[in-house]
Amino acid sequence: MKKYNFNPGPSVLPEITIKNTAEAILNLNGSGLSIMEISHRSKDFEAILKESKDLLKELLNIPSGYSVLFLQGGASLQFAMVASNFLNKKAAYLDSGSWASKAAKEAKLYGEVQVVASSKEQNYTFIPKNYTIPADADYFHITTNNTIYGTELKTDISSPVPLIADASSDILSRPMDVSKYALIYGGAQKNLGPAGVAFAIIRDSMLEKISRPMPTMLNYKTFVENDSLYNTPPCVAIYACLQTLKWLKDLGGLNAIYKMNTDKADMLYNEIDRNKLFMSPLTSSEDRSIMNVVFVFKPEYKALEEKFLEVAKSKGIVGIKGHRSVGGFRASIYNAMSDEGIKTLVQAMKEFESQA
Amino acid sequence: MKKYNFNPGPSVLPEITIKNTAEAILNLNGSGLSIMEISHRSKDFEAILKESKDLLKELLNIPSGYSVLFLQGGASLQFAMVASNFLNKKAAYLDSGSWASKAAKEAKLYGEVQVVASSKEQNYTFIPKNYTIPADADYFHITTNNTIYGTELKTDISSPVPLIADASSDILSRPMDVSKYALIYGGAQKNLGPAGVAFAIIRDSMLEKISRPMPTMLNYKTFVENDSLYNTPPCVAIYACLQTLKWLKDLGGLNAIYKMNTDKADMLYNEIDRNKLFMSPLTSSEDRSIMNVVFVFKPEYKALEEKFLEVAKSKGIVGIKGHRSVGGFRASIYNAMSDEGIKTLVQAMKEFESQA
Repeated sequence: MKKYNFNPGPSVLPEITIKNTAEAILNLNGSGLSIMEISHRSKDFEAILKESKDLLKELLNIPSGYSVLFLQGGASLQFAMVASNFLNKKAAYLDSGSWASKAAKEAKLYGEVQVVASSKEQNYTFIPKNYTIPADADYFHITTNNTIYGTELKTDISSPVPLIADASSDILSRPMDVSKYALIYGGAQKNLGPAGVAFAIIRDSMLEKISRPMPTMLNYKTFVENDSLYNTPPCVAIYACLQTLKWLKDLGGLNAIYKMNTDKADMLYNEIDRNKLFMSPLTSSEDRSIMNVVFVFKPEYKALEEKFLEVAKSKGIVGIKGHRSVGGFRASIYNAMSDEGIKTLVQAMKEFESQA
Repeated sequence: MKKYNFNPGPSVLPEITIKNTAEAILNLNGSGLSIMEISHRSKDFEAILKESKDLLKELLNIPSGYSVLFLQGGASLQFAMVASNFLNKKAAYLDSGSWASKAAKEAKLYGEVQVVASSKEQNYTFIPKNYTIPADADYFHITTNNTIYGTELKTDISSPVPLIADASSDILSRPMDVSKYALIYGGAQKNLGPAGVAFAIIRDSMLEKISRPMPTMLNYKTFVENDSLYNTPPCVAIYACLQTLKWLKDLGGLNAIYKMNTDKADMLYNEIDRNKLFMSPLTSSEDRSIMNVVFVFKPEYKALEEKFLEVAKSKGIVGIKGHRSVGGFRASIYNAMSDEGIKTLVQAMKEFESQA
């Protein structure tokens, strides 16, 4: 049976990414060697790394004066790196979800953290608005998409201080004005590739602000100066990312995928709003994520949860159980989720309604 | 043409590791999903993680009271983690090579570092001996195998203070008395799997010594308490490691592989000693590594280097160019290097001698 993978991450990847990565594991470019076995200093791998950076720059239209880095440790390690590198006195954070809150927590080790606004008391059912970014902050940190709660900050905001964004779960889902950001970072395991590699897009002039002594592997300079090759990078994961980037370019780039993503999200949100059993737990519909669609049963139907999960499973739908902090369901519909997957889920919701 | 991969890392892996990983990338256990796409919280992945830990414990005969961890960032990140976690006042380091020296450098950020002995002035051509480990050190750090220089500390030394070892390039090459170590760590990309995952085998009682506030991702407690699942682990790389561990068990475990490794190393060192063109740059033959066999042309034949590399290449031999700090050649003959590979290299050396 065909599976429709709605996992929040690691998550659905393009078929071509899967096929090409499996092939390169058996034999990279006909070299007779596996991508798992080749030196990260080899010409083959240098070409892979360069093409990955160049394609990311092209797709996101990254201006000159920025470096693209590949790192390890996920966004979680970068929570600490961001502060270790750039928090000299005070940093401002927007608390829009659990990951945003974790990022702020790591920063407290390095200086004052001012949370400019939080929706925590409302279980993060919206993105806080109408806050003031302190002009004396070293930077302002946002989380563009809140994977757990299904909210998304869909515009590139203007900030009087360097803007730093964790874009783990919506990078490459829409065009971004990179010039508005000092640093965009995240894990790869949503829209890019497998778990085990993280990315950073950093404005080079930010490196001048780094003054704290710190471990070599936490310093963004290490990665910029050594072109992400200070130590052995996760070669296989980077190769897989490259396949996804090529797929995205072939598909028409970020304008094309953004149209597809909004169409897919609309299809699913329309059904949630129409269906008498389901509802969105969000209090602000403008914040609905186009990547993670969170929905729950209306209170009177809550007892049906397990049954709906079983019905979905019988149709090949996997990974839609909601995060324990929200309950209900979460359909993660990243770039590689097909229309067919969305239609199958919508159909399952319709059928379930007609039989309830 | 069949390739013989003598790369220092990423390096040769068992054929079954390559085959099974490629299969799991296409379809994990017949689930219809790729190992790149499944949740790290899924039963499938939990089983992979558990079996990997259990097999590592079985193969290395790890006593109770130790935890096996999978991390990211390579040994390089753990250089800082070791000191951040355990260096409260003073730590002792044995400087036996570039990586040992880098480990000590990272530690200086956290406290006093006493280098008990160094062979740096002799270009690391031997492992320093006859040193005293200070009884007041928080720990004593060693590098069991020096990948660049081809020297290896082949015995499990006794230390009056907790013994911490970077075993990146000889882990699983021989039986070890794990009980003598407080922590054994390293990157996986030599004897275990692809780049992108690191391991740590830690005595649980060491966790009580951790007192410094530090980033969550640098704290060994985070990995022990969350069973390496605090954040998304490198699932594909761990899966590949599991295939290697299974291969090693099927092969007879560490006693069997140790016999094979010493036989392979002997074959190559015997040829280096016999051949009139080549020599070992090491000043202490007892320190010859069974993993990285470093050899050079005798001074009068040095001009032949490029030619020998070409001849080797024509026979499918790849990755034997020596590290720039040593020059000459380095044959990395990790667990998965076949007898046939060694014989091909030895044959190439013999032929080259007869034609020189």
